Amino acid sequence: MVLNLYLNLYSSSCRSLYIFAKLHVISFDMIPVDLMKAEHHSKEFVQISPLMKVPVMKDEDFVLGESVAIMLYLCRRFKTPDHWYPDDAKGCALVDEYLAWQHLNMKKHCTKVLWMKMMIPHFFRHSVPHENLEEATKDLNHSLDLLKDKFLRDKPFLTGDRISLADLMALEDVVQAISADYNVFENRPWLREWQEKVESILGQELCDEVHGPILKLKEAPAISSEMLNKFNVMKSELL
Amino acid sequence: MVLNLYLNLYSSSCRSLYIFAKLHVISFDMIPVDLMKAEHHSKEFVQISPLMKVPVMKDEDFVLGESVAIMLYLCRRFKTPDHWYPDDAKGCALVDEYLAWQHLNMKKHCTKVLWMKMMIPHFFRHSVPHENLEEATKDLNHSLDLLKDKFLRDKPFLTGDRISLADLMALEDVVQAISADYNVFENRPWLREWQEKVESILGQELCDEVHGPILKLKEAPAISSEMLNKFNVMKSELL
Repeated sequence: MVLNLYLNLYSSSCRSLYIFAKLHVISFDMIPVDLMKAEHHSKEFVQISPLMKVPVMKDEDFVLGESVAIMLYLCRRFKTPDHWYPDDAKGCALVDEYLAWQHLNMKKHCTKVLWMKMMIPHFFRHSVPHENLEEATKDLNHSLDLLKDKFLRDKPFLTGDRISLADLMALEDVVQAISADYNVFENRPWLREWQEKVESILGQELCDEVHGPILKLKEAPAISSEMLNKFNVMKSELL
Repeated sequence: MVLNLYLNLYSSSCRSLYIFAKLHVISFDMIPVDLMKAEHHSKEFVQISPLMKVPVMKDEDFVLGESVAIMLYLCRRFKTPDHWYPDDAKGCALVDEYLAWQHLNMKKHCTKVLWMKMMIPHFFRHSVPHENLEEATKDLNHSLDLLKDKFLRDKPFLTGDRISLADLMALEDVVQAISADYNVFENRPWLREWQEKVESILGQELCDEVHGPILKLKEAPAISSEMLNKFNVMKSELL
């Protein structure tokens, strides 16, 4: 039986997982979850995953949430090449360190900038106070500084000489910020260089396919007024 | 050479790690980091760990941050009993799922309640708006509901029949909320039962030793005015 992956490619975590599965030719059925229609809060979805988050994986009757957990499961289940999550204790500890750190740093701050700079003003037609956006971009800049000074340093990839799950996770968070027209590359030639290296390994065609929807999201029409209420919680958390 | 662990036992992540190391009789030197004096922002500490967070581990010249990464490293390095982080793909995936989820849920919400209900009013002599505290306790209650309905369900422990890193991490976050005099056990007999089971495995003496300082934190004197500025960032993030 093939895997089921419940995904929405506007989510950076879902894109990392989708790319990882495609890259390793893992058979899966993609079940799209429309976040704009709050399907992740629907009764049907909550029965599958009470966490109300994408991605979710179903491998026969084994249900698993959280992108980090799902990608580690796929590494073990499909014995993907060692460099993604090395067998040696120090190598995989460095990947674990990045995957733990990113939740409250790269992922949080890239998502926040996407919401404040694009989603809230464009989809919710709601203005974001200037100082809130400034604070969010300051946090993102600090995360990008750490991405370089703590993780990448002078290595080709975030955790060593070869690409790992850390790079794949970070790439999609960077794409999140790019989608909000935030110029992450300004004064950061190292970031462009790293991104190109990562994308050339993943394959440009696959990256273009996966990044297409989020990069074009700003061209989509504003959200219907009936949907606005469902998102008020997320909006108030971010403002 | 023994391990160095940079810790502050007011941090729930540090306590989980400390208990794990003690329980497995792993030799380590504890280097206390005084968060109340913002030592984690000091030049000396930033040189060791630019993430400016505790815990940090040094194993000879190998430096590692993030409690999740450090505990997984100790599991592999010291071959701790399998149930903490099972070898089988599904068993460890469930531990990975909890360890990924807790960052933005149990840990975040327990910490927030500790700050809003105790740290900010007591140490910073700053009142917290009622609606902010109400929002924080609502979030914590939702996390506790998920702890039961998604993770614990009818099993003895969060990820199966035996204790795992998930239980150890969750226990210390619950202690964080208890330290703020938040009655987590009200209408939750299952939580008390689970806590007692976990503590009996860890050993009551070790738990009492480790929980002592945080449970007594509310009796400590308010912070000096010269330190207040250093904490303004953390305070503004939480209010």
